[in-house]
Amino acid sequence: MADLPRRLIAEALGTALLLAVVIGSGVMGERLAGGNAAIALLANTLATVGGLYVLIEVFGPLSGSHFNPAVSLVMVVRGVLPRSNLVPYIVVQLVGAMLGAWLVHLMFDMKVFELAAKVRSGTGQWIAEGVATFGLILVILRAPAARVAAMVAAYIGAAYWFTASTSFANPAAAFGRMFSDSFAGIAPASVPGFVVAEIAGAMMALWLHGRLEKSAVAATSSSGDPVSVNVVKEERHG
Amino acid sequence: MADLPRRLIAEALGTALLLAVVIGSGVMGERLAGGNAAIALLANTLATVGGLYVLIEVFGPLSGSHFNPAVSLVMVVRGVLPRSNLVPYIVVQLVGAMLGAWLVHLMFDMKVFELAAKVRSGTGQWIAEGVATFGLILVILRAPAARVAAMVAAYIGAAYWFTASTSFANPAAAFGRMFSDSFAGIAPASVPGFVVAEIAGAMMALWLHGRLEKSAVAATSSSGDPVSVNVVKEERHG
Amino acid sequence: MADLPRRLIAEALGTALLLAVVIGSGVMGERLAGGNAAIALLANTLATVGGLYVLIEVFGPLSGSHFNPAVSLVMVVRGVLPRSNLVPYIVVQLVGAMLGAWLVHLMFDMKVFELAAKVRSGTGQWIAEGVATFGLILVILRAPAARVAAMVAAYIGAAYWFTASTSFANPAAAFGRMFSDSFAGIAPASVPGFVVAEIAGAMMALWLHGRLEKSAVAATSSSGDPVSVNVVKEERHG
Amino acid sequence: MADLPRRLIAEALGTALLLAVVIGSGVMGERLAGGNAAIALLANTLATVGGLYVLIEVFGPLSGSHFNPAVSLVMVVRGVLPRSNLVPYIVVQLVGAMLGAWLVHLMFDMKVFELAAKVRSGTGQWIAEGVATFGLILVILRAPAARVAAMVAAYIGAAYWFTASTSFANPAAAFGRMFSDSFAGIAPASVPGFVVAEIAGAMMALWLHGRLEKSAVAATSSSGDPVSVNVVKEERHG
Repeated sequence: MADLPRRLIAEALGTALLLAVVIGSGVMGERLAGGNAAIALLANTLATVGGLYVLIEVFGPLSGSHFNPAVSLVMVVRGVLPRSNLVPYIVVQLVGAMLGAWLVHLMFDMKVFELAAKVRSGTGQWIAEGVATFGLILVILRAPAARVAAMVAAYIGAAYWFTASTSFANPAAAFGRMFSDSFAGIAPASVPGFVVAEIAGAMMALWLHGRLEKSAVAATSSSGDPVSVNVVKEERHG
Repeated sequence: MADLPRRLIAEALGTALLLAVVIGSGVMGERLAGGNAAIALLANTLATVGGLYVLIEVFGPLSGSHFNPAVSLVMVVRGVLPRSNLVPYIVVQLVGAMLGAWLVHLMFDMKVFELAAKVRSGTGQWIAEGVATFGLILVILRAPAARVAAMVAAYIGAAYWFTASTSFANPAAAFGRMFSDSFAGIAPASVPGFVVAEIAGAMMALWLHGRLEKSAVAATSSSGDPVSVNVVKEERHG
Repeated sequence: MADLPRRLIAEALGTALLLAVVIGSGVMGERLAGGNAAIALLANTLATVGGLYVLIEVFGPLSGSHFNPAVSLVMVVRGVLPRSNLVPYIVVQLVGAMLGAWLVHLMFDMKVFELAAKVRSGTGQWIAEGVATFGLILVILRAPAARVAAMVAAYIGAAYWFTASTSFANPAAAFGRMFSDSFAGIAPASVPGFVVAEIAGAMMALWLHGRLEKSAVAATSSSGDPVSVNVVKEERHG
Repeated sequence: MADLPRRLIAEALGTALLLAVVIGSGVMGERLAGGNAAIALLANTLATVGGLYVLIEVFGPLSGSHFNPAVSLVMVVRGVLPRSNLVPYIVVQLVGAMLGAWLVHLMFDMKVFELAAKVRSGTGQWIAEGVATFGLILVILRAPAARVAAMVAAYIGAAYWFTASTSFANPAAAFGRMFSDSFAGIAPASVPGFVVAEIAGAMMALWLHGRLEKSAVAATSSSGDPVSVNVVKEERHG
């Protein structure tokens, strides 16, 4: 990994571009879809899947491509990110997310500063955010390194549709979307509920992963190499 | 592979999340699509493809990621899954499928318990389910281990559209969808016909695979080409 | 590769399933799309891309996954397929294609035997089929073996939209689609024009590939880089 | 790499096919979408993603698959492309782009020569083109060689939606689209603004990449991890 200043540039830029993709494709989708919200969300989904895959690959070797305070928190708990890096990571993710929203407004000739009016609240929405973030963290923790970008992107694409909240699954995303009164926006008053649900979902995934890992470790401890383990493990079924 | 309790957790959770993806994206698609069923099914398809790919990768090293009694049955016949595991696998798959439907209802503020009214019946539908499951099992048996998740996901994405039944191809999916009176639902009275057709399709794939395999083994022994070697390795499971 | 009878089963079954995917997803798309042909073609495209990718992977180690007389012809010219196999390959491809159409009719409760009424003719359509097949053969000849399935599927997905003929690019597909009076159908009188254009496009790709290859070989002998080596290995087939 | 004449054939043919994909799928999308521009752009996006992925893979070993004067310029600055090749590369890219537009017109029975009337201008559009090309060049410079085709294709798919200009990100694409008065067209008077913005975005990406690279090199010398090694190897071009 790079030195801290450059890692923070990577996190800031990556989160800004991620929010630009999420919010910008929502604006474009809504403008062109003639009132059919499913078509707008399909466009929003495809852009997010493609953009997320690329951004994770592009910035991964520098900063780990978190773009998400819940992920950074989990990485601190797992010992992957030094504890002292947590606050700087979160700060640049939040700032980057806000700048991403503003970049969209500049491109689409909208007012740069605005706040979203769209209320996203209620038990169903909070359960959805908890489920969405639970799934995201589980995918990140269990994905082989070479496939994490593709798996996270595919997961978020599915979660845009199967969770009732369209799966923010990211406190920085909730923060950034607050600054755009468009398709992907969220009213400031709805953000705290989303963030709490997201952290709760992330913690549940951490706990479950710890439980599942134990058995995997036991099974792997005799062979060693990560790729063959799969094959070897399968052989043992026979 | 993990010990049995953890494998059962993986099968239960994986099947629950798979059904949540299938049913939830159907609910979201239908709500947003303004009456255009093709757009709803496109959304349903993309979510299922992404979700299925990720779930197979995430839980494969633990339980083999069956999420499907027809797959577990085939794996017992092939000697990959111990015969004594078959009933526990199927029980947690069915329970997980039902819980997945209920999770969707919680997220989308629907009544938790309900039964589907959508009749799916008739010769065309049964042939379709037979074809769908035949194809699924053939793909699973012939896919190289590293590509099985992507190939199964791509196959199901195609089968949602080319089979008249939108390709359940999974008795646990038929069971779980029975509990949701929404886009992806199936009336309880239609479930037995689907399950019989699915098992029949699976058995035909098993039989055909046995026939095709023989030749591959014979051919490989003289050629030694790396592609066919894969097939031979799989044979050892049997 | 397998012995001839099993290779012919693979070609017949693969072509039948390919046509079932192409025609079936067209039927489903047209039924659900409420008159919007772009949505029907999007569904048709996604199903074809997923299905083609999987079928090439599944049957490749057995028969080479041609499913296409133009491809088999090219492989004979390149020395990859024995000349004596050409007629049997083409016969089972044509029979399989027809059976694929009939399977769709059984699943969708349509009359089994019918002929398409949709005229596809004129200079623009023939140029389109020539371009479509030229591109397909160039992709097949230049793709690294490990990526050929993904590349062919992605190419056909693009060609469904950028060629005016929606890219049949396959005489067996033209033959099979003749038997279904649905979204993907083609009137029998239009088939010969398509087949001639396809063969012409394939021959142009063969010629161009020979020209491009020469330079690659010359360049590789001095550089030894692993990417070009691939090309050299393929040359040995010729 | 091949000798210069064959590399120029590859660049000309690749750029022609790329523009045929971009413009042709726009024509088809607009014809079929019944006035819903979002559906037309979805089709345009999917065709472009598939086509771009395949074209980069197919011609990469010959010419590097630039298809884009901004990319060729960056490669000259990085020392990957000899300075003397820059003008020939750009000339064949421009000619190829124009021929690609004309090929579409032949296939779709349109007048071969025409100029687009669609004005694409203003600060928002120029910022969008700068952002689009900045992202494209950053992806190209940072992608591992084995994934560059998939990453570029996924990036452009996202950028079609998140940038207000639908992301031309390529002076040759702007030039070629000028010759088609259809969905993907751009009025000749709007081309210079786009080209300036694209070059500016490319230069910013070059500068940023240089800054980020330094740290990666420093970090790698102590860690030796295979992901960062890639970055180091690329540095040698510079």
